[in-house]
Amino acid sequence: MADTISISLDELKALHPADLADRLQRLPHDEAAAIITQLPAPLAAHALGEMEKEHSTELLKLLSNERIGSLVAELPHEDAADLVAALPPAQRRDVLAKVPAKVSTALRALLRYGEDTAGGIMSDRFITLRAEMTVQESQELLRSRRDEPLDDVTYLYVTDEQERLAGIVSLRDLVFRRPERRIGEIMNRSVKSVRAQADQEELARQFEHYHYFGLPVLDADARLVGVVKASDILQVAKREATEDMQLMVGLSGEERALTPWHKSIRRRLPWLFVNLATAFAAASVVGLYESTIAKWTALAIFLPIIAGQGGNAGMQTLTIIIRDLALGELSPGDGRKALIKEMILGLINGLAIGIVVGLLGFWWKGDAILGLVAGAAMVLNQIAAAMSGVLIPLGLKAFKVDPALASSIFLTTVTDVAGFFFFLGLAALAIRWSGM
Amino acid sequence: MADTISISLDELKALHPADLADRLQRLPHDEAAAIITQLPAPLAAHALGEMEKEHSTELLKLLSNERIGSLVAELPHEDAADLVAALPPAQRRDVLAKVPAKVSTALRALLRYGEDTAGGIMSDRFITLRAEMTVQESQELLRSRRDEPLDDVTYLYVTDEQERLAGIVSLRDLVFRRPERRIGEIMNRSVKSVRAQADQEELARQFEHYHYFGLPVLDADARLVGVVKASDILQVAKREATEDMQLMVGLSGEERALTPWHKSIRRRLPWLFVNLATAFAAASVVGLYESTIAKWTALAIFLPIIAGQGGNAGMQTLTIIIRDLALGELSPGDGRKALIKEMILGLINGLAIGIVVGLLGFWWKGDAILGLVAGAAMVLNQIAAAMSGVLIPLGLKAFKVDPALASSIFLTTVTDVAGFFFFLGLAALAIRWSGM
Repeated sequence: MADTISISLDELKALHPADLADRLQRLPHDEAAAIITQLPAPLAAHALGEMEKEHSTELLKLLSNERIGSLVAELPHEDAADLVAALPPAQRRDVLAKVPAKVSTALRALLRYGEDTAGGIMSDRFITLRAEMTVQESQELLRSRRDEPLDDVTYLYVTDEQERLAGIVSLRDLVFRRPERRIGEIMNRSVKSVRAQADQEELARQFEHYHYFGLPVLDADARLVGVVKASDILQVAKREATEDMQLMVGLSGEERALTPWHKSIRRRLPWLFVNLATAFAAASVVGLYESTIAKWTALAIFLPIIAGQGGNAGMQTLTIIIRDLALGELSPGDGRKALIKEMILGLINGLAIGIVVGLLGFWWKGDAILGLVAGAAMVLNQIAAAMSGVLIPLGLKAFKVDPALASSIFLTTVTDVAGFFFFLGLAALAIRWSGM
Repeated sequence: MADTISISLDELKALHPADLADRLQRLPHDEAAAIITQLPAPLAAHALGEMEKEHSTELLKLLSNERIGSLVAELPHEDAADLVAALPPAQRRDVLAKVPAKVSTALRALLRYGEDTAGGIMSDRFITLRAEMTVQESQELLRSRRDEPLDDVTYLYVTDEQERLAGIVSLRDLVFRRPERRIGEIMNRSVKSVRAQADQEELARQFEHYHYFGLPVLDADARLVGVVKASDILQVAKREATEDMQLMVGLSGEERALTPWHKSIRRRLPWLFVNLATAFAAASVVGLYESTIAKWTALAIFLPIIAGQGGNAGMQTLTIIIRDLALGELSPGDGRKALIKEMILGLINGLAIGIVVGLLGFWWKGDAILGLVAGAAMVLNQIAAAMSGVLIPLGLKAFKVDPALASSIFLTTVTDVAGFFFFLGLAALAIRWSGM
């Protein structure tokens, strides 16, 4: 299944690092590593930084520590730290010994923070001023550092002697103030900031809610250690949102369409076995009523319809609740309101579908009691589906588990068990009552 | 279900507009409108701009055109245009007549663009320079406009006489150049830009892929008409990602947990009826084998297990493919590779689960043939599930339909029909072969 697209080295050199990364990810790792060693270090480094972690980790195994060191030194520190973090501890120390001291110090500082935290995604390329500096001194400082690769100097950060954040000044403001004014007089002291330990998902919510362009990041002692920008958050936001979709159906958030099958199977198969166990639990309900089905085989036809409709309606509810929880749009008091709303919907959907199913049952099998039993079971199962669509994610959350985790598997267990029980239980009652 | 939280007007005034919007959305519309009229216009306007469209549209119906005009005039033009766009045409004209001419001209320009396009989210607060201006003249222009509410002047845009984009200059660069140099000499001419008609979902992909801070927006004649920033894209990215999750299960992307039930039902019930029709199609397969089930009622117990496991495995595949399509990570040639991978997975998953199901069937019912039939049907249905998980979204895409749209409903139809057919078909063969 090797990619047969052939492309010259010169063509690869002309690509944007992000596009080059896409290309390299589609090649076998040994071919990609051979290309990496032939490309200029800055381009190779940036492409490596753009790759999905599972690919870059494999590629790094095929490169020498010298080469890794030279690539790491080319990258913004936060991207370099991500690569170094993927190395085994001994190799990590060796690589850090091979890069300039200034880089290794910066990397060691960044490596202290978890990958999913503000500290793990922040940039350390920012300019700090002191409150006692004049506007002119600040402008001179900026001029002296004009060749430094800074992403963005929309804001300059003012710190005190302990490097604690004291305020911010916009570059625009700095340019037009009288030269002799002090930074302390013109800075904005009410600055929003975020702790380095803050979870990146929570950070993404804050950025989206308040439309921040960027936020300064503080360590436990309130010292300024980095800056997070909206463009850094974009990837986090998108990844987190799609992760939920994957967690719901028992997938790792990191799986992609072209993840090798042996990696996919390790994650997917266990959840399918969990599902199998729950399916047997549901099947045992059917087993309880085997003699009922033996008397009335038309029940077997309607059984999957009752359960399946419950599963689909429940998935609608579940998806909405998980989305709102993920985006922080569901406040604590809202759970009860959502539950009431969904139960109303379940009742109305159940009546609408139940009547149709009942009439179809009567028309198809000429059996009014079958229609009545199927219709009633449908109503009850729609309400059960609505309730579990709300209560499963809220319950997972209460147990401090991701509300999305395998929630669709739990949901279909409830809708299957409840559906089978309502339908076959009512059928058994009908048989006893009618003396069939 | 009215919200009983009572909060004073002074407390509301102290809130961030985004938080105020959250509060107002939880109140009945008439109460929210009463509060809007009592709040200072700038705060009320920004809160209205932060509200979900379905709420702000309802609120606008309760406000006078004078009040709407005064609120609209307070907002950034792109947010004002979103509010005005929600008004009926006659009211829209009346409101536009009530705002200052400069505002109504800007709004009319923005209203030409679709809501889901670059033009629909761009800001028109940017500063343009001319190539023939000197650095000093540019600095003076900036100084003269220092009190204007610009979001962000990290970049200044250089246009020609026809207002076509010719280059960009960073503010940082402008500050440190010799005063007599011409902008044309120092500007960067290779500027990435985007067309105003560009779809916002595609735009979000570009921002994420290339880590843009911002992009200039051009109209059909290549004139600079706006700027889109990463912080604007954040909301788009998150909304689009969660929309897919909702579309998959037959929900509108706009539904929230607290959307009124009568609105929810209009969208959800039709898809549940589509699902009902497909469930009856699947049930008719069971109907074909009613005599088989009558002879062998244990089949009814395993029926939902075979179908359900197919549905769950298929949902895993489907979710991954939809995610990769949404994030633009699946190139045209990759469909075939993904299909092969998923079929391998389906085979292995099918064998693993099939063997367990077969053994459980034998152990529970003491029936080796039942075990064999269930195991074999499980293998076949897992492969069918894997194939449909890939082919359904790719097929929807080929027909220019959103690949996520109700795809889970189509998928479970396939896994139900195929599962019932494999299982009951094999069972019928086994009965004939064994002479039961």
